[in-house]
Formats: sequence, C-alpha cells, structure tokens
Amino acid sequence: MSDALITLTTDFGQASPYVAALKGAILGVNPLVRILDLSHDIPAQDFRAASFFLASAIPYFPAGPIHVVVVDPGVGTDRALLYVEAGQHRLLAPDNGCWTELARHLDAPPRVIRLNEPGYWRGPLSATFHGRDILAPVAAWLSLNLDPDRLGPRTTEWVDLRMPAPELKPDYLKGEVVFVDRFGNLITNIPGQALASLAGSTLHVLVGNHHVSQVARAYGDAPPGTLIALVSSGGTLEVAVTQGNAARRLGVGVGERVEVRTTD
Amino acid sequence: MSDALITLTTDFGQASPYVAALKGAILGVNPLVRILDLSHDIPAQDFRAASFFLASAIPYFPAGPIHVVVVDPGVGTDRALLYVEAGQHRLLAPDNGCWTELARHLDAPPRVIRLNEPGYWRGPLSATFHGRDILAPVAAWLSLNLDPDRLGPRTTEWVDLRMPAPELKPDYLKGEVVFVDRFGNLITNIPGQALASLAGSTLHVLVGNHHVSQVARAYGDAPPGTLIALVSSGGTLEVAVTQGNAARRLGVGVGERVEVRTTD
Amino acid sequence: MSDALITLTTDFGQASPYVAALKGAILGVNPLVRILDLSHDIPAQDFRAASFFLASAIPYFPAGPIHVVVVDPGVGTDRALLYVEAGQHRLLAPDNGCWTELARHLDAPPRVIRLNEPGYWRGPLSATFHGRDILAPVAAWLSLNLDPDRLGPRTTEWVDLRMPAPELKPDYLKGEVVFVDRFGNLITNIPGQALASLAGSTLHVLVGNHHVSQVARAYGDAPPGTLIALVSSGGTLEVAVTQGNAARRLGVGVGERVEVRTTD
Repeated sequence: MSDALITLTTDFGQASPYVAALKGAILGVNPLVRILDLSHDIPAQDFRAASFFLASAIPYFPAGPIHVVVVDPGVGTDRALLYVEAGQHRLLAPDNGCWTELARHLDAPPRVIRLNEPGYWRGPLSATFHGRDILAPVAAWLSLNLDPDRLGPRTTEWVDLRMPAPELKPDYLKGEVVFVDRFGNLITNIPGQALASLAGSTLHVLVGNHHVSQVARAYGDAPPGTLIALVSSGGTLEVAVTQGNAARRLGVGVGERVEVRTTD
Repeated sequence: MSDALITLTTDFGQASPYVAALKGAILGVNPLVRILDLSHDIPAQDFRAASFFLASAIPYFPAGPIHVVVVDPGVGTDRALLYVEAGQHRLLAPDNGCWTELARHLDAPPRVIRLNEPGYWRGPLSATFHGRDILAPVAAWLSLNLDPDRLGPRTTEWVDLRMPAPELKPDYLKGEVVFVDRFGNLITNIPGQALASLAGSTLHVLVGNHHVSQVARAYGDAPPGTLIALVSSGGTLEVAVTQGNAARRLGVGVGERVEVRTTD
Repeated sequence: MSDALITLTTDFGQASPYVAALKGAILGVNPLVRILDLSHDIPAQDFRAASFFLASAIPYFPAGPIHVVVVDPGVGTDRALLYVEAGQHRLLAPDNGCWTELARHLDAPPRVIRLNEPGYWRGPLSATFHGRDILAPVAAWLSLNLDPDRLGPRTTEWVDLRMPAPELKPDYLKGEVVFVDRFGNLITNIPGQALASLAGSTLHVLVGNHHVSQVARAYGDAPPGTLIALVSSGGTLEVAVTQGNAARRLGVGVGERVEVRTTD
C-alpha cells in the first residue's frame, strides 16, 4: 500500500463503466495507489462547472494528491492535455481552462507541462477516452514519483478560462449565480468581503427581480421559510431559504443576475 | 498510509464541491488516513432519514472507524456538535438526534463529548459548513489517536430523536413505512420477531388500504409481480413486489400506515 | 493497511444503507482491506446491464482485486453464488450470468467455485441480502489470502448469459444499442473491426429509422450538433451528437436497432 493519492473529478455520472475503467487503468500502472472520488457528477461537458468545482474544493487539500480532472468535450481534437502545478496542488486536465480559476488566486505562477510522451500512456490510444488512456496512467506514473518533466515540454500557453467577474462599486454590487447546490442554495460570484465593506448601510439584495428578505449570518438566524442572503462557506454571497429551497422558490438557476444596493 | 479509517455520511449530493472540501479538510490534518463514502444522498436536511440510515448500516461495522455524519439543518445556530461512543462505534455528528436510534439498541450507555475546543478546528470558521471546518479536522485528529477528552467536556444531555414506535399487540401489529429503497421495497418499523410471534395464524398485511397477497421468506418465493410481505435484511417487516416496485405499484412512500392482522 | 483491494458493483443506488452495510460487513472480517466503488447505479435487478458494465470495465484492471458484484434479483431462491477466476480477474457474483460475457473474450476457460461453505459467511443469514451476508465476508476472507477452494466445490455448470449478437455480413452490419451513457451516446454491440472492414466504401448508418450524417474518428471531427458514428472507447460502433445528446435527439434507448450499409 502506497501513501500516494489520486483524486478523480469527472462528468461521467455514476452509472457508466467509464469511472471503473479509469480506476482500472490507474491500478494497472500502480496497483497500490489510493484512489479518492471527488465527484463524477460535474454537468456533462461543462468545463465552466468544473472550474467552479475545482476552485471551490481543491484549496482544502494539502500538498501531495494528484487531482485528475476529466471533463473533456474536446477529446480527440488537438486540444492538449496538461500537467499543472498550481501552488501546492498538482492536476492533470484537458487544456480547456478548467483549472485556471483555481490557479488565479494563488501566489506563484503555475508550472504547466504539455503531455506528449506516449511512453507513459495506455495503448492502443482511443479517440474518445483520453482520461482512461492518457490521464489515468500518467497520474499513476506520477504517483510512483515520476519526474513530471519526463511527461513533455513545459509550456506557458494554455486556455485561460475567465469566469464572469462581478461588478463591485462602493454602493452597488452586481454578479450572478454560479452554482446551485443540492439544497437549492444559490452561490454567487460576489465576494463576501465586498458585502462586508457595505456593512453599516441597509442592504437590499435582489435575485433577478426577487427581493431577498434579510441579510443573515447563518441559515438558522431567520425563521424557516425566510429568503436570506449570507456569506457562503466558499466566501461569496449566497441566497438561501432557511430549511427550504431557494432555487425552487424563485425558479432561478446558474447565470441569474444578483444585485446588492444600499439605501444610505 | 495509515490503518485509520474515516467514513462519511452526508446530504450533500454527488454534484457539489462540499464532499470534496470535506475530504480535503480531513487530509489536511491526516494525509494518510483512509476515507470511505457511506452515502452523500441522505435526503436534504432530513436527520430522521439519517437516523434510519445509521441504525441500519453502522451495526455492520467493526470497532475502529470514525463515522462522520453531516446532515445539519441547524448549522450556524447554537446546536452542539458531538463526539459519540455508542457501543464499539465512534461518531461525529450534529446534536440533532441522528445517532440516538443506533445507540438505543446497544447495551452500554453512550459516552458523549460536546466539541468546544477550537484548537482542533479549521479556521476561519464559516457559519454554514461546520462539517468541513469542525467535524472533518476533528475526525482527522481522532484518526491520529487524539484522546477524545481533549475535544471538550463530557455531557449527558443531547437531543434524543425518537423514531415512530410500532403498536404491537398479540393479534395486531401497526407501524409505518420508514424507508423506500431503490427497488421500491417498503421497509417498515414492525419488528420481524413480532411477525414471527404470530406464526401459525393466517396473516393479513395491509399497506394503507392495499391488501398484500402473500407472506413470503424471500423475493423469489412468489411469481414475478406478486405483492409480498417478508422480513427485510434489517430485520423488520418489508413489503415488496417480486421483480417489481412496490412503492410505484401502490403509490405510497415514507410514513404510510402498515398493519398486520390475524384471522384465527 | 493491507495491499488487498475489493471493488464493489451493485444496483443499490447511492441513497440506501445497503452499500454501507456491505462495506461494514467486509471490514468486519478484514478491517485493513481497501474498498473501491465501481458503481452502485447499475439499473435495478438488471444483470444484463451488469454484464455490459463488467465486460466494459473489468478488462482495464490488473490482477489482484476481488470484484464483488451484487445485482441479484434471484436472492433467496436456490440460485448459486459463485467465485470466478476469468483470466487474471477474480469475481464474486450471483449465478445469473453477469460475468460470462467478460469471460468469453479471455483465452483460458474460467475457474468457477460454488459457494457453499457457511463458515465464511455472516450469520444469521438473511433471505434478502446475500451480498452483505455471503459475498462481502467471503471477499474479505479472500483478501486475507484464503484459498478459494475452501469456499466450496468447483463447478463447470453456470448460467451463461448470451448478449444479443450482431449480424455481420460483408456489406451489411446489424446490431443494437446496448448502453446509453450520461452524454446520451449510444453504444452498440457492432465491433469496430467490422466497421473497419468496410472501409473504402461509403457507409450509411441507421439508428432505427434515423440516418446518421457522418462517420467520424472523434467527437470533435464534426461541427457541434452533428449526428455522427464513430468507434467507442470500448471498441464498438457508437452514435453520438457532437457536444449534444444523441439519445435525446433521436428519442431512442437500449435495444434500438442499428444498421450499417454500403453503397458500393
């Protein structure tokens, strides 16, 4: 049993044999590595959702794991596959920008390698499943302490996926819903600090045209059924219904406009 | 790689980054601990469902694992977080009673500690995700053999969640559906022993107003499509359709009344 | 921590306590074994789907793991439970043929043992959950290097599940959809080699009555929205929509007829 750890983030769903094939291909190279599922339910082919997911989850990990990300609508085209060191985090992912939001908030510039050394791949290479045939075996080789520079040349060019930026003024904040969780909570891209900088004023929060009743610290601060705004566990403005489902109540989803105004 | 094992039971769903953040926060304290998913699909904020889940599943585990349970509608209020030793089982859970049904059937009284020592928590503490910021790091510290008494004071007060009790008479049993599994099998709270004590009599089982055709030992004892009553793998009365879906057939769910009568 | 690894493939779904009970029962015998989820979302009681899953996924695994398969509509009848060595792969599964398609493509004949030695089972035995009471503890014993011959007698009789065979003529191929993945890709049972043998001719691919626009090598070879035929990552003919969902577009599912004709 090895100490090395490989995590998996995909859009394969739970029902397909693709997740299992990925795990088999990893173990085929390093039978002793630990494998940890992060999610296999990233929306299909949605590398923007993968970007939010990685930026939200990976910062909580220590150095060490190799994070394999397979959300890859461009599989079989000439899009590159990358090995990335972003701060202390190591990822393997298609070059579709799914990791750049995570890296943007770190001090050091990322170190990026373009995978082009088929000696560490599985053959014969399929045209539709590079996760299994390239990323999985490469992750396993890395878990055996392969020097990443053996995987291909360093590069300073990659797809930089810009997530929608909020508009932050002294008395007005505007952003959008970037994720809806299972509880129907609406996670936005408006930083909690921007909200805090308005403290002292009376805040009006709007989701689309819906007025949010109350700004709160935690779900339990308002009676059940209240529509509240609070700072999410990820540090951004969140709109929720205490013991209820805000997405369903308001009939909104990812992309919905969110505004904060003051009356002072 | 450590021998220690942490299991996870949450209502986060498979798609959110919360499960991954929880795993990251655990590994941040103990990078070598093993992590095992039990379920992330407990119905949202439903600690009664969590109670059934834990009472059904945890008894099959040996001593050793630390079972982390995050079904926590009260997060951010002053509800406590608890470390519990229930028989040989060790759990970390919000004080909403989700573990008391499990403990009720064990010989020894539970040993309960109220977590109040922030030295073992993750900072800064969010108001909405104590699973990640408190339970995850505390579990990891326990996996490193931290003495539980370091986590806070022992307590003899906690929320005791009483599950609905069946009515058991010599010739009449009344209970309810407490879980519907993926096969549509209706799991009730009527003990199999109570059913056995009626053996010799002809039994009539009713789900709501639906008469169950047959009392059987196993699914395969009746032709496909038959509505049968049997003793579930958890030891309680179950109503099923052989190679079919009883919940769909009868249009019933959790909470539906179930009765057993004799004609002798 | 042990090097041994047990994988799990079930139709229990993610929400039930059955998966957790299975894991607990394994750890009850070998607390140090590694457990790896392959899928718990095989369609309920669908051992044909399990057959496709295993044949698609298990070949990517190295020798070593014990693959536990619990898709078991016959539980509690006198159907046998089997230990199977198929090539380098070791499985524990009900005798419903779910493993025979996997074994058919291997060189050596399978070695099969019928489990009848209750000394390695969990007691008391339930009538409805042999996965937990028999397969889980037996897998754990095997992970402790128990000689499989201790589990019961060798047998040469088992249920052989024949998957639907495609019709392969020099200028005409006919098969069917055997799996629809989360992307809506239609995976068929027509071998990619059969398709390759028609190369040079102009190919016409039909799904039901729908004409497929183009034969491609990878998803990205056609503009978004194009209905294409290609060779799947499993080596069979697949019908997909570039950056879209073929199953939804065509309104078809498992069992739909697929034909390939040439015009030369």
